Amino acid sequence: MKERGKRRVGILGATGTVGQRLIHMLRDHPHFEVGALAASDRSEGKRFVEACPWKLPWEMPAEVREMRLQPCAPPVDCDLVIASLPSDTARVAEAAFAAAGYPVISNSSAFRMAPDVPLLVPEINPDHLQLIPVQQRNRGYQKGYLVTNPNCTTIGLVLALAPLDRAFGLEAVMMTSLQAISGAGYPGVASMDIIDNVLPYISGEEEKVEEEPQKILGSLAGGTIQPAPFLVSAQCNRVPVQDGHLESVRVKLRQPAPLEEVKSVLRGFRGLPQELNLPTAPTHPILVREEVDRPQPRLDREAEKGMATVVGRIARDTIFDYKLTLISHNTIRGAAGAALLNAELLLAQGLLD
Amino acid sequence: MKERGKRRVGILGATGTVGQRLIHMLRDHPHFEVGALAASDRSEGKRFVEACPWKLPWEMPAEVREMRLQPCAPPVDCDLVIASLPSDTARVAEAAFAAAGYPVISNSSAFRMAPDVPLLVPEINPDHLQLIPVQQRNRGYQKGYLVTNPNCTTIGLVLALAPLDRAFGLEAVMMTSLQAISGAGYPGVASMDIIDNVLPYISGEEEKVEEEPQKILGSLAGGTIQPAPFLVSAQCNRVPVQDGHLESVRVKLRQPAPLEEVKSVLRGFRGLPQELNLPTAPTHPILVREEVDRPQPRLDREAEKGMATVVGRIARDTIFDYKLTLISHNTIRGAAGAALLNAELLLAQGLLD
Amino acid sequence: MKERGKRRVGILGATGTVGQRLIHMLRDHPHFEVGALAASDRSEGKRFVEACPWKLPWEMPAEVREMRLQPCAPPVDCDLVIASLPSDTARVAEAAFAAAGYPVISNSSAFRMAPDVPLLVPEINPDHLQLIPVQQRNRGYQKGYLVTNPNCTTIGLVLALAPLDRAFGLEAVMMTSLQAISGAGYPGVASMDIIDNVLPYISGEEEKVEEEPQKILGSLAGGTIQPAPFLVSAQCNRVPVQDGHLESVRVKLRQPAPLEEVKSVLRGFRGLPQELNLPTAPTHPILVREEVDRPQPRLDREAEKGMATVVGRIARDTIFDYKLTLISHNTIRGAAGAALLNAELLLAQGLLD
Amino acid sequence: MKERGKRRVGILGATGTVGQRLIHMLRDHPHFEVGALAASDRSEGKRFVEACPWKLPWEMPAEVREMRLQPCAPPVDCDLVIASLPSDTARVAEAAFAAAGYPVISNSSAFRMAPDVPLLVPEINPDHLQLIPVQQRNRGYQKGYLVTNPNCTTIGLVLALAPLDRAFGLEAVMMTSLQAISGAGYPGVASMDIIDNVLPYISGEEEKVEEEPQKILGSLAGGTIQPAPFLVSAQCNRVPVQDGHLESVRVKLRQPAPLEEVKSVLRGFRGLPQELNLPTAPTHPILVREEVDRPQPRLDREAEKGMATVVGRIARDTIFDYKLTLISHNTIRGAAGAALLNAELLLAQGLLD
Repeated sequence: MKERGKRRVGILGATGTVGQRLIHMLRDHPHFEVGALAASDRSEGKRFVEACPWKLPWEMPAEVREMRLQPCAPPVDCDLVIASLPSDTARVAEAAFAAAGYPVISNSSAFRMAPDVPLLVPEINPDHLQLIPVQQRNRGYQKGYLVTNPNCTTIGLVLALAPLDRAFGLEAVMMTSLQAISGAGYPGVASMDIIDNVLPYISGEEEKVEEEPQKILGSLAGGTIQPAPFLVSAQCNRVPVQDGHLESVRVKLRQPAPLEEVKSVLRGFRGLPQELNLPTAPTHPILVREEVDRPQPRLDREAEKGMATVVGRIARDTIFDYKLTLISHNTIRGAAGAALLNAELLLAQGLLD
Repeated sequence: MKERGKRRVGILGATGTVGQRLIHMLRDHPHFEVGALAASDRSEGKRFVEACPWKLPWEMPAEVREMRLQPCAPPVDCDLVIASLPSDTARVAEAAFAAAGYPVISNSSAFRMAPDVPLLVPEINPDHLQLIPVQQRNRGYQKGYLVTNPNCTTIGLVLALAPLDRAFGLEAVMMTSLQAISGAGYPGVASMDIIDNVLPYISGEEEKVEEEPQKILGSLAGGTIQPAPFLVSAQCNRVPVQDGHLESVRVKLRQPAPLEEVKSVLRGFRGLPQELNLPTAPTHPILVREEVDRPQPRLDREAEKGMATVVGRIARDTIFDYKLTLISHNTIRGAAGAALLNAELLLAQGLLD
Repeated sequence: MKERGKRRVGILGATGTVGQRLIHMLRDHPHFEVGALAASDRSEGKRFVEACPWKLPWEMPAEVREMRLQPCAPPVDCDLVIASLPSDTARVAEAAFAAAGYPVISNSSAFRMAPDVPLLVPEINPDHLQLIPVQQRNRGYQKGYLVTNPNCTTIGLVLALAPLDRAFGLEAVMMTSLQAISGAGYPGVASMDIIDNVLPYISGEEEKVEEEPQKILGSLAGGTIQPAPFLVSAQCNRVPVQDGHLESVRVKLRQPAPLEEVKSVLRGFRGLPQELNLPTAPTHPILVREEVDRPQPRLDREAEKGMATVVGRIARDTIFDYKLTLISHNTIRGAAGAALLNAELLLAQGLLD
Repeated sequence: MKERGKRRVGILGATGTVGQRLIHMLRDHPHFEVGALAASDRSEGKRFVEACPWKLPWEMPAEVREMRLQPCAPPVDCDLVIASLPSDTARVAEAAFAAAGYPVISNSSAFRMAPDVPLLVPEINPDHLQLIPVQQRNRGYQKGYLVTNPNCTTIGLVLALAPLDRAFGLEAVMMTSLQAISGAGYPGVASMDIIDNVLPYISGEEEKVEEEPQKILGSLAGGTIQPAPFLVSAQCNRVPVQDGHLESVRVKLRQPAPLEEVKSVLRGFRGLPQELNLPTAPTHPILVREEVDRPQPRLDREAEKGMATVVGRIARDTIFDYKLTLISHNTIRGAAGAALLNAELLLAQGLLD
């Protein structure tokens, strides 16, 4: 990266749960700073402090309080855009920014499954960034491009699947989630629906988890990603927990895998972000716990500043090969932190120059 | 059944969560009444009102308030015993009562998997009561015997599995539970462990759910139960819900089964308790809901007075054949109501004479 | 009351939390039945089952499922109107119905403090119904009129205050509430705001609780209510509880009152609804509990079918005379049940003929 | 303070909720380090990692994992003792340590109200440390002594009361609390008692809050504390919140106090810990928030690392002068942090030499 001061991030969806988390993570970031805030039309022109229902247990950073909200359309005075928008507005806004020359790092589902858009997890598939020139050619973008991060439930899962797939080959994955309320944004889940209750339905979630992992773990050849050849089944539930998606997972492998080797492969997992020592990269992308009652959302969601997948209860399954439980912080590793790590990788690769 | 007044039930474990529920269900029961209350040594001799931390949102029935707690050992002045004891004390106490001539209806796990003890779900395997003479011969019981009901997570599941097994044959079942805190009794789960949290571990639970269904759906021949030939995998979680175990389930069937037929087979399920019109029997043992976000613990746990399994979200699975979500009330159908329905069946079959 | 079949109730705000509760309470009511359902413009013309996010743990009654929602404006085919509307729409709609000749029983705050509108608690101030002719004269209503019930936090409080005021005279009341989420309707309180949290603010609530009790306990003379001469201070908090407002209360009395007399005066409280044996009237409007840790929302909110105030922890205060804790079910006694009991009293008094 | 390396703290009650928090706060402390861990007889001799149900969302510090638990009796190899014990064991153990020559900083209630024991809040009454020689003379202690910190509900309150008392004089205080579950320790409150519920009773709590503030704000003369002449009334409730006691407070003042002056007096409050820049001292002991819905436990309990009282909703009361809402972190400012700040003050005053 050239030395040229901090890159200015334009945050689309700045008033939302993920936007807030991102603003918080950008305080004192070595390479990035908040450059502009944008939100839905309704908030346009308002001061951020007026428009944003700030829900984090730290003060809103002073530098954003008085910033005026801009519309989610170019031009916006910034070097790159990080977007956390509802899927329908994302489809229009993100394409417009990319067409206008901005690198767009998207947290929405709009373009995740597009064949020419990287669905990036820096520890797993940094090579998928080679799709960017293909995408620019396909879409007639000059300088801008789109890079996406996975759904908040997918990412915790796929981090644990990646080393298993590489070491033993994955054949099938059954995942049942117990997801936190912050995943639905604010106001999101009504309290009458979740106090002393569980919701067995999250719109669109199961479909996403059932197709994203294969693209992420897919192999790139000839400008195309060949999805990894395994099946995923997802059942998604919402539980009365503020943050942290817990997932009960069974995996069927292609090769025999002794228990200790499974654990050691998970524990030893590292990727390019660790090698490059990216600021937001967890030292250990996967933490393996041996206590019989871990991981738990309240105790494990903040591990590695919310950027690790914490795995526990790894044991032989009666039907598939292994069962395990994992936790991932849905608004950090599952959203704001994922996008930020993507931005850091793009910067390190010279893709923000 | 002979006309001879109400049978007097001796309740072992009367001060516990299940004992309280049973006492509540016995108010105004047409055939049974509370005859005696027994609890652990520590409570022995105390008045029930003093010893019992009553946690139901109805008043403690006047007729039990002043009853003195007896030890969990024969003799106790009653016609049958319903026991809800920790497994270790159950092993001794239940055998002692059966040996002393009492019909023992047990809610504990101590004898569930014993080859000569019926693991009874009246809608599914009333024929397993033919094990009683075998058991009496084996164990030298004269008049007493042991009948058990399943684990609170098993029973909701197995009610939904039974019609599928009969109609299409089961090959494999993956179940992930989101279980209520009342399942752990009182004081049970510490609030610091479950507020804003999930516990991914319930001691002994997964093992029970993985072996009980096959016995319940097994076939009796030559005085022995041949377990049904399917596999079960269980992952059990505790969530901050007062009552009602929710289960995310996938099933693999032996024969093709169109979606509408699956639903219709579930909806149409009836058994002997419905035929005999037993007082505690639900009219519909299984309720099928079509709303995308049902069943939910708070809204569905009380269906059919807590005696039904409510099934929803039935859909094709990407790996197995179908996925579905179900709810069952853990202290009613999963415990007190199960035992009481067993008692009603025993009475109807002349086994309490 | 003349024998002329059940009176048909037009429910304004039928899709809301209180509307649903009222529909549930009208199943099998001896004197009333649902005649028409009305809701905001957005729902107009829809079938109730489509428009209503039903949140009660019982099935939506079959007779309302297919009813079409009407606008909240006369004419509606019914004998009386029970309204649970936001205050601003209530102001217009309720006046329109009263002007059009309908008896209007209102659960909203729009007209509660109007000098010519009864703020009715049948156990306390049935004589305030004498305001109706005054009101009709003032407002030019021919046959219609407005009767209101108190705020859901006021009513639990004022039921406990009434016997104390009569027996000993009230001088001052300090009330701090811990209110249930259902009081905010649906979707109401966002789950992110209340899981592992408390909200110390409920819009407009403290003001209502600080002025309504004095009107309710006021005396009617010359067509005017003279407010009772005591002060109320309120601090209102929202807690993660589904139903049931808990209130921590201190009272300063005008005359000395021994503890046992305070309890006996509360226990002995009865009113006209008990005398008339109105269908929804609780046998005991106030229940006094002696256990050190009662009342509790989960265990006490359903007492007397949710129509009683349950009082406990009555003790000498260090500053005022007594402190006590009370619970009242906010959507039953605090809303739907209050309105229904008002309707029953109006019927019994011949005011619905 | 002399330069002589870090003082070694002996932690009595190390496995409890407060002990854990203290161990966490002592990582990297500039002046103190964990010297020894002690707990009840049952744990004696065990490794800390085995005996302690660690419930904080950070890893147990490596340096304590393998430490062996000692009995709560002298001698223990350390320079001072910080004790968080149940009141009955505290009475014996703390006196024994003081008699054996250890400075004892106690978080329990055993000696709080003893006339010769400072009930210390460093911002408020550092002069009360002059009781130490009196105490040593009274009790025949040579070198050891007892210093206590207030109850976790008292301290949040008294921090807000101190500047008001100094500026305007306090006459009476009404406090109703909504307290977190961690205040009851682990396992503490049973989840069945608090999910979808509130407990209106905390054993001994109201009594403590009604007498401790007057001692803390009392004046020392002739070796005796004259309690401040105001009355406190307390009603204490437990709510389903992990950490952070919220308090609804009314105050009656002796002198007129304009609203802005009340706020400014609160905002401007500082004490000796701020002057001495003690490591655990909050920069602002009191934070005043203007938002209508603050403070809230989830958003405000961690303010100033959990060492501040956050005050909001300050407004004229209808009966007393002002009402306000405050939050204080019960295991930090209310316990471990209070004790640690006391230790820091003792060190700065040369009382640990």
